[in-house]
Amino acid sequence: MTKRYVYDFEEGNKDMKDLLGGKGANLAEMTGIGLPVPPGFTITTEACIYFSENEEYPLGLEEEIQTHLESLEKKMDKKFGDEDDPLLVSVRSGARASMPGMMDTILNLGLNDKSVEGLARKTSNLRFALDSYRRLIAMYGDVVLGLKPERKEERDPFDVILDRKKKEVGVEHDHELTEEHLKDIARCFKEEIKKRKGVEFPQDPREQLKGAVIAVFKSWNNERAVAYRKMYDIPHTWGTAVNIQTMVFGNMGDDSGTGVGFTRNPATGEKEIYGEFLMNAQGEDVVAGIRTPLKIQELKDILPGAYKELKSTSETLDRHYRDMQDFEFTIQNGKLFMLQTRTGKRTGFAALRIAVDMVDEKLISPEEAVMRVDPDALNDLLRPVFDSRKKEEARKEGRLLATGTKAGPGAASGEVVLFAADAHKKKAKDPGAKLLLVRHETSPEDIKGMAASEGFLTQFGGATSHAALVARQMGKVCIVGCGSVDIDYENRVVRISTDKGIVSVKQGDWLSIDGTTGEVFLGEIPTRPSEIEQVLVQKTLKREESSLYQQYERLMSWADSARKLGIRTNADTPEQSEQAVAFGAEGIGLCRTEHMFFGGDRILAVRQMILASDDAGKKEALDKIFPMQKDDFVGIFRVMGERPVTIRLLDPPLHEFLPHTEEEIKRVADELGTDVEQVKEQNRKLREANPMLGHRGCRLGITFPQVYEMQVRAILHAACEVKKEGIDVHPEIMIPLVGSQGEMRITASLVHGAAEGVFRETGIRVSYKVGTMIEVPRACVVADEIAEIAEFFSFGTNDLTQTALGISRDDVKGFLPNYLELEIYPVDPFQRIDFDGVGRLMKMGVRKGREKRSDLKIGICGEHGGEPASVKFCHGIGLDYVSCSPFRVPQARLAAAQAALES
Amino acid sequence: MTKRYVYDFEEGNKDMKDLLGGKGANLAEMTGIGLPVPPGFTITTEACIYFSENEEYPLGLEEEIQTHLESLEKKMDKKFGDEDDPLLVSVRSGARASMPGMMDTILNLGLNDKSVEGLARKTSNLRFALDSYRRLIAMYGDVVLGLKPERKEERDPFDVILDRKKKEVGVEHDHELTEEHLKDIARCFKEEIKKRKGVEFPQDPREQLKGAVIAVFKSWNNERAVAYRKMYDIPHTWGTAVNIQTMVFGNMGDDSGTGVGFTRNPATGEKEIYGEFLMNAQGEDVVAGIRTPLKIQELKDILPGAYKELKSTSETLDRHYRDMQDFEFTIQNGKLFMLQTRTGKRTGFAALRIAVDMVDEKLISPEEAVMRVDPDALNDLLRPVFDSRKKEEARKEGRLLATGTKAGPGAASGEVVLFAADAHKKKAKDPGAKLLLVRHETSPEDIKGMAASEGFLTQFGGATSHAALVARQMGKVCIVGCGSVDIDYENRVVRISTDKGIVSVKQGDWLSIDGTTGEVFLGEIPTRPSEIEQVLVQKTLKREESSLYQQYERLMSWADSARKLGIRTNADTPEQSEQAVAFGAEGIGLCRTEHMFFGGDRILAVRQMILASDDAGKKEALDKIFPMQKDDFVGIFRVMGERPVTIRLLDPPLHEFLPHTEEEIKRVADELGTDVEQVKEQNRKLREANPMLGHRGCRLGITFPQVYEMQVRAILHAACEVKKEGIDVHPEIMIPLVGSQGEMRITASLVHGAAEGVFRETGIRVSYKVGTMIEVPRACVVADEIAEIAEFFSFGTNDLTQTALGISRDDVKGFLPNYLELEIYPVDPFQRIDFDGVGRLMKMGVRKGREKRSDLKIGICGEHGGEPASVKFCHGIGLDYVSCSPFRVPQARLAAAQAALES
Repeated sequence: MTKRYVYDFEEGNKDMKDLLGGKGANLAEMTGIGLPVPPGFTITTEACIYFSENEEYPLGLEEEIQTHLESLEKKMDKKFGDEDDPLLVSVRSGARASMPGMMDTILNLGLNDKSVEGLARKTSNLRFALDSYRRLIAMYGDVVLGLKPERKEERDPFDVILDRKKKEVGVEHDHELTEEHLKDIARCFKEEIKKRKGVEFPQDPREQLKGAVIAVFKSWNNERAVAYRKMYDIPHTWGTAVNIQTMVFGNMGDDSGTGVGFTRNPATGEKEIYGEFLMNAQGEDVVAGIRTPLKIQELKDILPGAYKELKSTSETLDRHYRDMQDFEFTIQNGKLFMLQTRTGKRTGFAALRIAVDMVDEKLISPEEAVMRVDPDALNDLLRPVFDSRKKEEARKEGRLLATGTKAGPGAASGEVVLFAADAHKKKAKDPGAKLLLVRHETSPEDIKGMAASEGFLTQFGGATSHAALVARQMGKVCIVGCGSVDIDYENRVVRISTDKGIVSVKQGDWLSIDGTTGEVFLGEIPTRPSEIEQVLVQKTLKREESSLYQQYERLMSWADSARKLGIRTNADTPEQSEQAVAFGAEGIGLCRTEHMFFGGDRILAVRQMILASDDAGKKEALDKIFPMQKDDFVGIFRVMGERPVTIRLLDPPLHEFLPHTEEEIKRVADELGTDVEQVKEQNRKLREANPMLGHRGCRLGITFPQVYEMQVRAILHAACEVKKEGIDVHPEIMIPLVGSQGEMRITASLVHGAAEGVFRETGIRVSYKVGTMIEVPRACVVADEIAEIAEFFSFGTNDLTQTALGISRDDVKGFLPNYLELEIYPVDPFQRIDFDGVGRLMKMGVRKGREKRSDLKIGICGEHGGEPASVKFCHGIGLDYVSCSPFRVPQARLAAAQAALES
Repeated sequence: MTKRYVYDFEEGNKDMKDLLGGKGANLAEMTGIGLPVPPGFTITTEACIYFSENEEYPLGLEEEIQTHLESLEKKMDKKFGDEDDPLLVSVRSGARASMPGMMDTILNLGLNDKSVEGLARKTSNLRFALDSYRRLIAMYGDVVLGLKPERKEERDPFDVILDRKKKEVGVEHDHELTEEHLKDIARCFKEEIKKRKGVEFPQDPREQLKGAVIAVFKSWNNERAVAYRKMYDIPHTWGTAVNIQTMVFGNMGDDSGTGVGFTRNPATGEKEIYGEFLMNAQGEDVVAGIRTPLKIQELKDILPGAYKELKSTSETLDRHYRDMQDFEFTIQNGKLFMLQTRTGKRTGFAALRIAVDMVDEKLISPEEAVMRVDPDALNDLLRPVFDSRKKEEARKEGRLLATGTKAGPGAASGEVVLFAADAHKKKAKDPGAKLLLVRHETSPEDIKGMAASEGFLTQFGGATSHAALVARQMGKVCIVGCGSVDIDYENRVVRISTDKGIVSVKQGDWLSIDGTTGEVFLGEIPTRPSEIEQVLVQKTLKREESSLYQQYERLMSWADSARKLGIRTNADTPEQSEQAVAFGAEGIGLCRTEHMFFGGDRILAVRQMILASDDAGKKEALDKIFPMQKDDFVGIFRVMGERPVTIRLLDPPLHEFLPHTEEEIKRVADELGTDVEQVKEQNRKLREANPMLGHRGCRLGITFPQVYEMQVRAILHAACEVKKEGIDVHPEIMIPLVGSQGEMRITASLVHGAAEGVFRETGIRVSYKVGTMIEVPRACVVADEIAEIAEFFSFGTNDLTQTALGISRDDVKGFLPNYLELEIYPVDPFQRIDFDGVGRLMKMGVRKGREKRSDLKIGICGEHGGEPASVKFCHGIGLDYVSCSPFRVPQARLAAAQAALES
């Protein structure tokens, strides 16, 4: 038996997407469940593949099409090309996945110089028939015959003719053209085709059809489609299906119309039919936006019967597909026809509500609900947002000044501050102050001022700059790399170049930034924190008062029972820890002790330590830092309770702590009672060519063990103190930048030595672990040797990405944009784990580590730990947990659950 | 049958080192070939291992020792502990490999209060007997009974007693003590042992013997021995043997003596007995250095018979062992005894000559000769050297001022110059000038000045600093990190701190540096280039006039027929290429085009290119550079002929080419007719946080394809031009820093595009290859994907080490010394490939690369390419070639041959 290439809509169903494409399968499905679909048939993707390879129809296709066409004629009781009552069809492409770039649609196929008159007679509407005909000629000329503008700056040749005609007869709008004009235009269109392409517009409807089908087949391999498939990794061998469907017309008078709808509200998730329509119009008109469409509910008054049928059809679709559908419909002379349905896109709010509601409606299981919500969308629910009407007003008032790289979602509005120290001071004086830190870029010394601000706007830096990193860490709103912003620190003014010239914003003026879109607005736009944050973190809203929170909580509980990965957080303070626990963190995966080194008194002591010329001086300084560090840890342990707390010992190179400007150097020298030259000399000595690869991490601990010793003592003294309060704490001490067994052995024995000292002094023992970050490639290669000593691993994928790829995150600005554009990297490797490179090194590290120590606990604490695809990857390679910033904990929980359910 | 633990010297041979230790096996071998060895026996290493594990003798050992001792008594016709004519023995440890830290020797065992008198009578030498006895008591008290100083600052307790006695009786030297004094001293020694250790010095010789044997066993596990084994990876389970041998005495009068000798001259390799001896002395006296020993030839006049026997014994040993031996002998009453033999250490000159001579003498095969010469030693033969007498004079005159880190072997003497530009100018004026560049450190801009100098001395930097690197590249003498040198650029004076105060050396004064030892001398010391260089490079010496050259040439020809690895060179100029070819390079493995960018006119054009604000400006600058680059390549291609020439496209970040000091910036701005601010601004823009991981390598080629295009055009235009001269050139174009297939695809197609253009323009085609450096870990991980496009790989192990270990070579100074001391790294990973980390990544790269392209050509062009152990590693993992600086080519050839012969 020869292969079959054509299926009637009655013969397919929604599971035949591979063969019939998405559109064809859903048209068949709707037909099958008795919904009013204009009859038609689908030519399979296999026919397309055959055509792509052989540049001709497969054997038998021509006949099959003929047979199905005849059966359609019978069904409709019309003849294709009939001079009195022609059957008209549309031809549409439809691949498995929605794919832009391919030929989309040709309408009104079957019209010619004769049948157009039959249509006019049959519908008693000459104008409608002529208009349909000239549209067919233009569409066919364009997509099948390839009559396009020859140069970019040219307009569409058919539009040119149309406009010339309107000018000639002195009318402004299309609908003012008379029937005679339209007849003339059709003629001109045909002449243009003949002149430019040397062929006649085909009068034989079967020739028209064959031309259209081949055009669809060919569009599968056009440049844009190929590029798109490459980008999204869609196989070139999938092919596209072709749908041939009886035409229905929404422009047949006042009892006709066309529209699009959703089975639920795609913005809020509310269970209601939602959408828009236009009476007496075709699909094109809705898209063109010349007339304002009506809300779907208004149809009730206009055509109550059609409305009722539409509503019930919507409910059927929703129930049948067990998901919100996005559909197209046409009403022809009062009768409803469904032209398309597919799963609809939705906001995070809607996704959450629909998933939870559908479980309640017993349409889906809790596991399915978990799979239905995009973790990134969930993230949106946690961010403060602008009042949307006020934002729209601001936009209309021309207050949108600039757009930068979005680096921390949410909305923030505040007084512009240019110096972190000022922000800190202002906030201390007035805790209610709303501040926006605007800088060239931020640095670790700005931490306190950043904490005091609602958000950050930087002129330089990318999505992985310091400001972006801290924004994710603190859950702040952030826009970076906003090049049209120019900061004049001296005069304390920000100058923003806009279309209308430069806008000057003085320190103290208000700006508003939308980190979800990257937009910068002049003046204030009111914001509010997310309901979930209000319930969980601020506790200003009761659980029972927020239905959003309740939906969130139910979804997360389903997620938690599905997931296998543990979720921890990266937190450096008790406040962050508390937030993270509220968001569901089960421990701390990364507590960066150096952030604690930057506080007011501390930085002075730290600098004193660095500048001390002998061990005694260093010890004196460390003795000052010790009680402060201890108190930090006490606070964190109290919040985290019995949850594990992984604390990384000092990591950055020492010169990061030294002052660099002349002024600062002088101040520090004064404060420490030393001279400027000594500070400068030390600065010079510690300066490095490549600090990222320099004297840092465990290299500091090995050359300068006193610091690590002090830190271990502070951690364990704090642990003992909190244990005395009755809390069974679980500190995990993490050594950064280990690349060899020797480093691990020496630092672990330093830790154990210091620990025994603390236990002797306090008379209390706490159980603790010693492990390491895996963040240089060599650590992956010798992970077995390291695991002989390390009790846990934590992948530091930020640095592992930098070293494995040989790329400094701070220096990518010059080439990363090109690399992404040229698709050398599919995505920014600092955002999503580079699965093929870094990912394979991680796999090697896991395998080798567990070879030597089967119960080795392995996590990840790089920025990637909160990125959904990366979380799934971590699940796949068998990590025990991921750790991310507090605000990304919910999305990591969800991604982890999805990973577990997928596998 | 129980295991045997003791072997008479008659029973063993030199191949039984595992069981009898090195010393025991060689004593047995000498006995076996009839040489006069004092009789004795060896307790096996297995007995030691048993003792280490069980802390007692294995079953039967006690009896075996007794049996062998009795047989020894019979052989010597003396009794152990006999009151009239006692048998005396020595007890010596002897592991498989010579190993410091273990107990070495106890002499005169068998003496006690009674037998000492018998010995006196038998030898008619009471003084000799008493002196022997007190020495036994002291040695035994020290090594067996552990009577040592209790605190560091204390002296040896036996020395204290001896000195007290001498003071008491008013004499200065030991030999002035009377027999009565010696008797008294022995008594005091015994009392001291009793007092401090609570035991008597054992009078029973068998107890003495057992004590000594156990002391040797225990010394196997003492701290120093364990640490040594750890460092050199010697298994702890090897154990040491114990040799018990009849004592012979070189201090029995004027017909007795003792000495050490070599079967050939260890300095020159000449075939002659060589060594020193002392008449009427024991081994200790030779070591103590109180008396000046005589040359071995002088023995001929003193004891002609013994000399004749010694000479013939030496010849026998040399012939029998088929290698130069280092032996110890004693003459007792005119009779020669051999006490030890082993393979002797030798200079590079000697190693070469001995190896070649022994082939001529048919003692060894050419392959064995190749294995006999240490590649590092070979390297020494290529360096200029000081006239050794003149250097000794300088030392005696107190002209040795300082010592730094040796970074380029050889000797250089010249006028001190503090600025590279001055060196360049001076040399241009006076080509005969001998200059020594003295700087804080050097940088790429100094290249021309460095080429003009004989050597470099830097205050800062380590063995992998820029100066060291260039020294190896250019074959210059170099000392780096010489901290006692202080350079005052302003006053053009170098101040060197010495024991005797500060020595000021003005620019223009002479210094001499020995890069082989790290020594810095004041004034001139005459030097000469190595003979091999005189023959091969300078061509000032004829081949037939240099026997050293002839030996070298023969050894290298044997090496070349053994080796499988190709040897190429890293060379950037025609001169270097010529040198390298003279030294045997078979191609260029790395030609760094950026070195060509630093010349006088060029750097200006390069800066113009970087500073150009638009493509037209850039093109104008590139058009200026093009002909210069082309000429460079023409020169190199002409020298290299049909050998492959691998040219790396531009690699360093652009800011390396910009001026940095205020003064330079101003000059450049003037030269280019642009303003200072623009230069500064560009400098700021291009500055990077971690330039090693920044915008460089193929990232430049991708974002700024015009440069690569210009370079490819220059290479291939040059290739076509030289091909027209009839030379079939083989350029290989190498893309740096590739880490993904995308980078390789884009740059390769750029190369092919430019190449086709050149072939069209010239009407000539040359065959060329496109490949990549493998220098980031990701490249190893995805080597299969890269090999789909790359036609060759070249491991850039400098950068691969930096990225795999996460270490910036420029910033290691703060921790590398600690790391080496703590044995975290066995050796500096920038000197020798880190086999366990970087090495495994390389293996992965080779495996994956060849998986996809079985004929993939793979080499290495990092600094490691000339280091012998690394060369052997490269052979082991199947590379096709190594590439190193011209002066390291011979040693790489030799190492490659050894690797092939070993495997």
